[in-house]
Order: sequence, then C-alpha cells, then structure tokens
Amino acid sequence: MRAVDLIRKKRDSGEHSREEIDFLISGYTRGEIPDYQMAAWLMATWIRGLSRAELAALTEAMLYSGEVVDLSDLPGKKVDKHSTGGVGDKTSLILAPIVAAGGLAVPMISGRGLGHTGGTLDKLEAIPGFTVNLSLEEFRSVLRECGMGLIGQTKEIAPADKKIYALRDATSTVENVGLICASIMSKKLAEGIDALVLDVKTGSGAFMKREEDSVRLAEVMVETGKRMGKKVVALITDMEQPLGRMAGHSNEVAESIEVLGGGGPADLRELSIELSAWMFFLGERTKSVEDGRAIAKEMIANGKAKAKFKEGIRLQGGDERVVENPEMLPQARSRFDVASSSSGFITGTNCEQLGIALAMLGGGREKKEDSIDHAVGLEFHKRIGDRIEKDEPLATIHYNSGAKLEEATRLIASSYQVGEAAPAGKRPLIRRIIGA
Amino acid sequence: MRAVDLIRKKRDSGEHSREEIDFLISGYTRGEIPDYQMAAWLMATWIRGLSRAELAALTEAMLYSGEVVDLSDLPGKKVDKHSTGGVGDKTSLILAPIVAAGGLAVPMISGRGLGHTGGTLDKLEAIPGFTVNLSLEEFRSVLRECGMGLIGQTKEIAPADKKIYALRDATSTVENVGLICASIMSKKLAEGIDALVLDVKTGSGAFMKREEDSVRLAEVMVETGKRMGKKVVALITDMEQPLGRMAGHSNEVAESIEVLGGGGPADLRELSIELSAWMFFLGERTKSVEDGRAIAKEMIANGKAKAKFKEGIRLQGGDERVVENPEMLPQARSRFDVASSSSGFITGTNCEQLGIALAMLGGGREKKEDSIDHAVGLEFHKRIGDRIEKDEPLATIHYNSGAKLEEATRLIASSYQVGEAAPAGKRPLIRRIIGA
Repeated sequence: MRAVDLIRKKRDSGEHSREEIDFLISGYTRGEIPDYQMAAWLMATWIRGLSRAELAALTEAMLYSGEVVDLSDLPGKKVDKHSTGGVGDKTSLILAPIVAAGGLAVPMISGRGLGHTGGTLDKLEAIPGFTVNLSLEEFRSVLRECGMGLIGQTKEIAPADKKIYALRDATSTVENVGLICASIMSKKLAEGIDALVLDVKTGSGAFMKREEDSVRLAEVMVETGKRMGKKVVALITDMEQPLGRMAGHSNEVAESIEVLGGGGPADLRELSIELSAWMFFLGERTKSVEDGRAIAKEMIANGKAKAKFKEGIRLQGGDERVVENPEMLPQARSRFDVASSSSGFITGTNCEQLGIALAMLGGGREKKEDSIDHAVGLEFHKRIGDRIEKDEPLATIHYNSGAKLEEATRLIASSYQVGEAAPAGKRPLIRRIIGA
Repeated sequence: MRAVDLIRKKRDSGEHSREEIDFLISGYTRGEIPDYQMAAWLMATWIRGLSRAELAALTEAMLYSGEVVDLSDLPGKKVDKHSTGGVGDKTSLILAPIVAAGGLAVPMISGRGLGHTGGTLDKLEAIPGFTVNLSLEEFRSVLRECGMGLIGQTKEIAPADKKIYALRDATSTVENVGLICASIMSKKLAEGIDALVLDVKTGSGAFMKREEDSVRLAEVMVETGKRMGKKVVALITDMEQPLGRMAGHSNEVAESIEVLGGGGPADLRELSIELSAWMFFLGERTKSVEDGRAIAKEMIANGKAKAKFKEGIRLQGGDERVVENPEMLPQARSRFDVASSSSGFITGTNCEQLGIALAMLGGGREKKEDSIDHAVGLEFHKRIGDRIEKDEPLATIHYNSGAKLEEATRLIASSYQVGEAAPAGKRPLIRRIIGA
C-alpha cells in the first residue's frame, strides 16, 4: 500500500477500506507518511467527503492511535459534555461541578480557544494557580477525589488527532463534518466515558452557520458514538448571539460562579441545567431528563455545585477563594461603552464578529502560539428582541490596551442589527435534540 | 497575505490574483511556504481548476523563479519541440539533428522517463560517455558549435517547477491540464527559444487518454506560449500503440539512427519529418510546412542529419562510433518471444500496459531514484490492423534478468486485442493541429 495511491483514490472520489484508513493514520502518526502527503489527502477528503464507513474507520484509527483511558476502577458512571464552540459559551465550568455534585464522574478533556471562539482551558487559567496540564495519573487521582477533572489533551490521548488537527489548521481543512466528527469523537471516546452529551451550536457565532449543517454534524457524531457503545445525544442550540452576558475569560468565570450561586442570566442558566439534566439521564443517575433537571436545580440551590467547583479548583492547584471573591480574578484597567447609533429593536447580531472583536482586544488568539489577556472581555447589554435607544450602550468593552479599541468598537457596533420592530416569535435556545 | 487564506480561497473555488499566485510560488521556492501548504493548495487546484488568467500568472511566476536563458548572441532562430510523452516516442533524437543540420538552433531541455513513459535524457545516456548534465555555459558552447544541445533541467531553469513537480509526483496532483501546462511551458519558455512545436499525445499510451483532454491541454499551452510572444503550434498525435517498432533505451537510439539513415519504420519517419517541418516553418527557415518537409527529407538523404547527430554526441562526451555501429550500445543477454494465443487481426493495444511491462523488466522507473537498465527493451512485431496467427510472436522481449519475465509476458500478451476483422479505416497518426 502506498500513500500516493490512497491520495489519488480520494481525489477521484473513491471510498477507502478500513485497512487503507488505518495505513494512513498509523503511518502518519509514526512519522512514516510526511505532512505533505497527509495535507493533500486532507484537502481531497475535505472536498470529496467521507462515507459513514470511512468516518467510522477514521474515528477508530485516531482513537486507537493512543491510549484509551480505563476508568473502570472508579465507582459510578462517567459522563462528559462537548460543545462545538461559540461566543460566551461557558457551560462546562457550570455543569461539571453540578454533575459531579450530583454523583456522576465528569472526566473532561477540553481545548483552547481559536479564532472567534473561547476555550474552556483558557477560561480555567484565568483562575490564579489553576493548572490544566495534569498527567493521566494526576487526572485519575483528581477524578477519584472530587468526581471532576478538567484537563487539556495529553500526549497519550489520540496523538493522531493532535498531529492532524495542527495540520488542518495550517491547510484550511478544518470545517468539514467528517473531519470535525473524527477529531472530536476520537478524543472524547478516549476519555473512558459511558455517556456523552453534545452541544452543537448553530447560527452566526458557530462554526456551522446553517442549522442543517449542525444537524448533519450532530447526527454523524451521535451515530459514531453509539456505534462505539456509548450513550450519546446532541442538543442543537442557538448561537445567533452570545450565550449569557459575558465573553472573555475572567468575566466568564465570574458569570459561571453567578449561575452556580443561583443567579446569572436566564439563557445560560437554562442551557447549563438542560445539559446537566441530559448528563444525569444518560449517566443513569435519573430515570428521566425531567428528574435530571430537578437534581441540577437542587445542586445549585443547596450550594453543593458551588462547593464542588471550589474543591475542583483547589485540587488542580487554583485559588478557590475566587469563588467567593470573583474580583480576585484578573481585572481589566479600563472600560468603554459601545453606543447604539439608532433607536429601535435588536433584530440580530453577527455573533462571530463579536468574538473576533474580543480576540482583537487580546482576549483570543489568531494563531496557536498567541498568548491571551485573561482580563479582557465584553459585556453585552442587549439581546435579540430588546428595545434600544440611540446612544444607549449595546456592550461594554473591558480592556487593557487601547491599540485596537477603535477597530473593535466599530466591529461591535456593526455587529448589531437594529430595526423598527422586534422580530416576531421567541428564538428557542434549544432547537432540536438528536439521538434521544 | 497568508498561504492558509489562499488555500481556503482555492478550496472554495475562488480565483487568485496575479499577486496571490506570485506570493505562493515565490514563497514556496524560497522555502518560506512549507511543502504541506503547497500540497494542500495543489490538491485544491487539481480539483477546482485554474482560470486562464491564473494559469498565465502561474506559468510566469514559475518561469521567472529562475533564469531565462538569453541566446540572442547566437545567430539564427532557436526552435524546440516538446512531447507530452508516450511509449517508443524517440522523435527528439531524430529531429534535433535534422533541424540543426537544416540551419536552425535547437536548445532542448528534456526530462527523464517516469511511470510507463520513456525520457529523452535516459535514452541519450544509453550512448557510452554521453552526458546530459552540462552547465548553462557548456550548453551555450555546444549550441554555438553544432546548433543542438540536449540537456536536463539545470538548477537555474524554473527552480519552482523542479520543486513543485517533485511534490506533485508524491501527492497525486500530476494529471491536471493547468498544472501540466505551467510546468512544461515555464521550462520551455526559459530556454530562450523563438518557436516551439508541441507533440501532444492522445490514446491508451498517453497521459491524456481522451482526445478532447489532449486538445484542451494543447490549446492551453499554445495560448500560453503565444501570450509570451513565442510562435507555437501543437500536433495532436496518436499514442494508441507504440511509436515505431522499438521501446527501451539502446534499441530506441538504434531505431533513431535507422531513421536518420533513411530507413526505420514508416510511422516514426513520418512523425519525425512532420515535426521537423513545423520547426523549420515556425523558425522561419521555410515559407511553408511543405518546404519544411522537403528540407527534412533532404537532410536525411544527404547524410547531414546523421553527421550532425555524430557531432552532437561527440560534443557532449559520447562515443560517436555508435552511429555507424549500433551494436556498441548496451545489449541485453536474452530474448523471449511473446506469442499470440489466437489468430485474427490486431484491433487495439493497451499501450500504457506495454510501457509498464518495459519498466517492470528494468527499462523504466517507478520512483525517481530507481536506476535504469539501458539494454532492456521491447520489439513490437504487429501494429493495429495487422494479421496475426496463433503462436506467432506479437513482440520480443530483450532482457537481462528473468525475475519479472513471466509477469511482463502476461502483461504484454494481454495488451493486444485480437479480433476477427481488421478495424475499419486507417488511424491517422496526426489527428489535429492546434494553433496553426
């Protein structure tokens, strides 16, 4: 078997056998197939697509390129959630302590923000001392002790994905349902989980802008997970506007603490409880999703979720005092209000552009090597359907350097569409549920 | 400008500006754009295609990546021929001396055989002592002295093409009209020629199997050459069966000497004279192609073409005695006849398969690093339309090692289609002329 022949096959829209996919992935992981051949294959695959059988083979080849964590010695079911990414999406920080407090284990391997989206690891690092770089042994010990562990991809987990993802990023082969599915699922299936809840974003702030694409990705991921013997559902959720009132790092941690304390914005609270409820249900902690909702609310009301968050922070080296004193998180020196140039109703947002404005201010990264300013953030005052008066602030920028302030202000102002009438009907936050 | 954005643009079927193409080609040639990004771009380009404007920009970017040879100090017009490659295609060895003897200069930069096709450089190296690795200065001096020079691509000529071609070979991005055109024309335009005759092969032994694809490639190359101020025509010629009776290296040199001596097979003689005639006409040596034919025949009849071949061999370090004594060329130790399993008429050949059989016996290379056995060859006894009896030989294998003899024999036998009736009508050797 030769890589050059397999590239030709995919270029000509052929379907690979399982052996051919194994040859490509294991050869590339071992360094026997060079980057340039994998890059050509990825582009051919991006354009020509993958069949269901090819996708299954690819996911498994990437999964078994590394270690599959065995958590069977830990008592109880292990459940995780994965989001495809958006602006202001901090539900992981909220539901991990809720679900762990409710008695399930949450072994969560997360990523960093890239482009217009935020990343769980970056947000956690806004907490002084918090480390996401645990070894597999440390991860296992934290999980055993408090029921939740929040780490980055280790070198043992799906090394093929790590290598392929970096190459896709540099070769414009990221946004493809099959390749995204294989990347996400190979990592998640390596965590040793029993069940997985997927939050597939749709709308202007998501990677998949059109609901039909999000549904397709969700279906493919659910199918892949179920084939591997896992319980999986996917919620298709709205990302036409930021989730919650805050985007950034310190201020997303602070907003998460608000929700854990029983407050916070309604949309963020609703989605966090809904995702937790599905985790409780799939993890067989409850007999229904409804019962799952009840437990999630109870864990907030009785303070156990908040206490679990403190415990998790402490076990991963962080300063747990931030939970009671969020002002201990890095704070930006200056604030600037972005005012509306007209009166009316908010009819829509370009949510991706809001994420780009945040990144531009230092709160995101364009390249993997970029550093992040955890203190920088955006505070959104208006949601779709809200009334706004001319000169009233749409959003407040929390910033340290004024270098890009003007550009970011223009970008944010132009991200809001203001019309004469409020849009008809309410936008449901949860659009569809796939695989239930 | 970033390579990753240009890859995305081509992936999404966008059209590059001239500046974007320049950025990619000069960045890649200088080593600033890595192989894997160029590989992804090549695959996107292979699948999505290039517009005429992109192709012009690409050809020029590759041409000006290196030196454009200035031969204006040499008297007279400089003319070359380029073939897209086939089995038994040795016309370069014949027409270069004919045209040089007729008073034009032929600065010919050729390639090596790859896959099922032979290469002019490899054939010349069957001549003891002959070197194709001249410096540009030596090339110029040989040209000045005898009017012809036959060399390989130097490091000064279109370095971008050299680097990109190696990458295309390893990433299955070879067979694409735009990329082939840019590769050929950037090298040919760098030779300092006034006119170029293209021999675009079509049929089972060509890279382009379908006549419409060959015509498209021819049109694009002619257009590109004319845009750059060169006189160019393309002959679409038949490659449904080998050209002449011989394929291999020593035996193709020997067959070329036969034609230069006034003999040789009719098809090879006809095509060599026809291509020479067009070179004389485009090089303004004659007022018509008809007059060109007359001079070509005259150069053979008066022995001047043969004498020119000797002179060229001597000037490039070769032993010119092979011209009078072809048995001095490397000879294979053994011969084996491939017999027909039935009686009837030859109705067609799988010509590519015949080339592969030759390569398998050591007379070609699968990979660039492979060495070649110049003595190995095939001798074809039957042409399409010929009568054959059961057990009569279709071809004779000249071989040194019996290792692959059986496999090659099977491949050759299965390459001939034998039917009850001869195919109706005569196959024209020259199908069409483009750009005249």
